[in-house]
Amino acid sequence: MPASPARVRFHRFPDHPRLARRACMLASPAQRQENSKGQHMKKLMNTPAAYVDEMLEGLTAANPSLVLDGESGRVIRRSCGAARGKVGIASGGGSGHLPLFAGYVGEGLLTTCAVGNVFEGPNAGSCIDAIKLADGGAGVLLLYGNYGGDRMNFDMAAEMAEIDGIETRTVLGTDDIASAAPEDSAKRRGVAGIVYAYKIAGAKAEEGAGLDAVADIAARAVAATRTIGVALAPCQVPGSDKPTFTLADDEIEMGMGIHGEPGIWRDKLKSADAIAGEMVERILAEKPAGSSRRVSVLVNGLGATPLEELFLLYRRVKMLLDERGLEIVQPLVGNFVTSMEMAGASISICFLDEELERLLAAPAACPFWRVG
Amino acid sequence: MPASPARVRFHRFPDHPRLARRACMLASPAQRQENSKGQHMKKLMNTPAAYVDEMLEGLTAANPSLVLDGESGRVIRRSCGAARGKVGIASGGGSGHLPLFAGYVGEGLLTTCAVGNVFEGPNAGSCIDAIKLADGGAGVLLLYGNYGGDRMNFDMAAEMAEIDGIETRTVLGTDDIASAAPEDSAKRRGVAGIVYAYKIAGAKAEEGAGLDAVADIAARAVAATRTIGVALAPCQVPGSDKPTFTLADDEIEMGMGIHGEPGIWRDKLKSADAIAGEMVERILAEKPAGSSRRVSVLVNGLGATPLEELFLLYRRVKMLLDERGLEIVQPLVGNFVTSMEMAGASISICFLDEELERLLAAPAACPFWRVG
Repeated sequence: MPASPARVRFHRFPDHPRLARRACMLASPAQRQENSKGQHMKKLMNTPAAYVDEMLEGLTAANPSLVLDGESGRVIRRSCGAARGKVGIASGGGSGHLPLFAGYVGEGLLTTCAVGNVFEGPNAGSCIDAIKLADGGAGVLLLYGNYGGDRMNFDMAAEMAEIDGIETRTVLGTDDIASAAPEDSAKRRGVAGIVYAYKIAGAKAEEGAGLDAVADIAARAVAATRTIGVALAPCQVPGSDKPTFTLADDEIEMGMGIHGEPGIWRDKLKSADAIAGEMVERILAEKPAGSSRRVSVLVNGLGATPLEELFLLYRRVKMLLDERGLEIVQPLVGNFVTSMEMAGASISICFLDEELERLLAAPAACPFWRVG
Repeated sequence: MPASPARVRFHRFPDHPRLARRACMLASPAQRQENSKGQHMKKLMNTPAAYVDEMLEGLTAANPSLVLDGESGRVIRRSCGAARGKVGIASGGGSGHLPLFAGYVGEGLLTTCAVGNVFEGPNAGSCIDAIKLADGGAGVLLLYGNYGGDRMNFDMAAEMAEIDGIETRTVLGTDDIASAAPEDSAKRRGVAGIVYAYKIAGAKAEEGAGLDAVADIAARAVAATRTIGVALAPCQVPGSDKPTFTLADDEIEMGMGIHGEPGIWRDKLKSADAIAGEMVERILAEKPAGSSRRVSVLVNGLGATPLEELFLLYRRVKMLLDERGLEIVQPLVGNFVTSMEMAGASISICFLDEELERLLAAPAACPFWRVG
C-alpha cells in the first residue's frame, strides 16, 4: 500500500512563474477568502474545495458506464471493469478539462483515469489506483499529457505497480507545437491531440494486442499528431481571485496552453480565416516526413467558444487542406478538451497511415464520443 | 414558387423592447460599423454577414450526414433525403443555438431544418423548402419553438405547401415555464426541452406512424416537458455593438430566455445547489397531473458554462428528484441548446409515460446526439 500518497502531490508547473503565483495562492486557504475583493468569474459551484468531487459525483450519476473507485476516491473506471487478458490503458490529469480526461473512459478508449484537482495533476495514490484498476493481467499503458507533476506521480505509481507484478509502459502526449521547438519535441506539452492517442491505442488494446504493441501504436499516434491553440479569453480556477491570465478586449494569444501557459504572440483579434490559416501553416510546417495524404482534423473548443465558430474555423481548415491535396477523414469538431470557461480553440491534425486510420475508425464509446 | 420569400422575414421579437432595439441596430448597416466604439465580444468569424452561411458550410463539410439544400440555400436536410412513405419532420429557427436547430437533423430525429440568421427566424422561403424537402409522401410535421416570426413564416409556408398537396401539422415548443403563467402555457417560449419533442416525434415517424399520430405524440412530449434557465453572462449577436443584456459581476438572472429575454428575478450569484434547488422546485410545481414517477432530465449548458458545472447541477437535481421518489431515466447533460457564448444553464424535466419513454429510448443519430 502506498505510504501517504496524499502528501505526494505536485502542482503542474511548479517552475512556471505565472502559474507558480497561482499555485502559491491556492496553497494558502486564507487567501482563498479574498475572492470578493478581486476580479470574479461566476461559477456554478458550491465551494471551491468541493468542486471536483461533486463534479465527479454528477458525472458518474449521469453516466452509469463510469464508476468512481480507488482508495483515493479519485479514479474513474469502466463500470464493467478491466477486460481480463487485455491491456489496460490508464490516464490521468487535472480537472477542468472535461470531457478530458475522465470522460474518455469507455470501450475502445481508456480503462481508467486518475483525477486531480482543477489544473493539478492527480496524486500518486490515485495514479496507483488507476493502474491497478486498469490491469486485466496483460499490463497497463500509462498514457497522459507531458506535465511535470503528472509524470512524477505516474512514474512513482508505475514503480509501485511493478512491485505488485503489474507491467507498465508510459507514453506521453506531446502534441502542442507552440510549447517547444521541433528539435525539443519531447519537451512539448500534451493538449487536445491526446484524444487521437486514446482512440488509436484503445482500439489496439481492444483487439487483444500485447502491451508493447499498444504502447508502440500510442507512441506512433502521438508522433503523428500536431496541435496549436489560440486563446480569446481566460478561465479562472475555482477559489482563485484572478483569471489565469488577462487579455485586452481586442487581443488574442496564439499558442497558449490549456492552463494559460504563455503562447507565441499576442496581437489584435484577426478574422477566423486568418487565424485558421496561421494555425494550419504552423502545423503543416511540421508535417511528419513520409506521411500520407490522409489526415484527421480536430477543431476543438476550449470551453466558451460557440460551436458555430468552431465550424467557421473548420470550413477554412478544410479549404486549406484541400488546396494542399490532403484528404480529411473522420473530422472532429466540438469541445473535446476544454479549460473551463476559457474562450478559444485548438486545431489538431493527425497524419494517418493505414493502421492509424483503421484504429481511429474502430468502434468506441464513452459518454462524450462514439465511433462506429 | 414563393414570390420573393427573402422579403418576408421577421425578427423574432418585433414587440420586445430589449430586442427591438437590437433588431433596429441590425437593420442599419451603417450602425454595424460602430462596433469598435462599443463593448466588444471577441468572435472567431470573418464578417457578421457571412457568419451563418460560413458556419453552415463548415457544419456540412464536417458532417456528411447533413446537406445544405433548398432554393433559399438555408435548409439542412439528411443526406439520404426524406424516407418514402414516412412522415417528415421539419423544424427551423434562428442561428446561434447549435446544436439546435440544424444539428438535430438525422435518423430518428428531424428530416429537415430551415436556418435563420443569428437570433432571427428563418424566412418563409426557407420554411417552404424545409417542408418540401421533408416530404416523403406521408405529410410533414412542423415542430419548432413558439416565437412570433417563426410562426408567421412557417404558417405561410404551410399554406403554400398545402397548395402543392403536402399535408402538414404544426406543434410548437412551449416548455419555458418562466415565460408565461401556467394558465397561459400556450404563450410560453420554446427552449431546450424541444429536443425531447424532436426525439420522441422522430422515433414515432421512424416507426411509420401517420401524420396525426406523429403530431399527437409531439404535442404530448411538449406537454410533458418543463424547462427553466438561469443566465450568468450574456452573448452578443455578430455585428451588434452590445451584448444582448448586461449583468453585474456578481449577478445572475433566473428564467432568462435563450435570446436574452427577461427572466423572473435578478440577484447575487448563489450556490449551485441553491440554484438547482429553485429550478427544480419551480418545475415540480408544474408537474403534469397524473404523471408517472419516471422522468428524463436535461441539464443544458447555454454555451460558456463548463461541463464540470453542468455535472454539479445534475448532482443536485438527482438528489432532489431521488428525495421525491422520481426515477431518472436517460439523463442528458451537455450543450444541447446554446446561445453562443452566453453563460448559464437550463434544466428540463420530461415527465414520461410508457410510450414517451419507449420512443425516447429508440435508436436515433445526428452529429451531436446518438441514442441506442
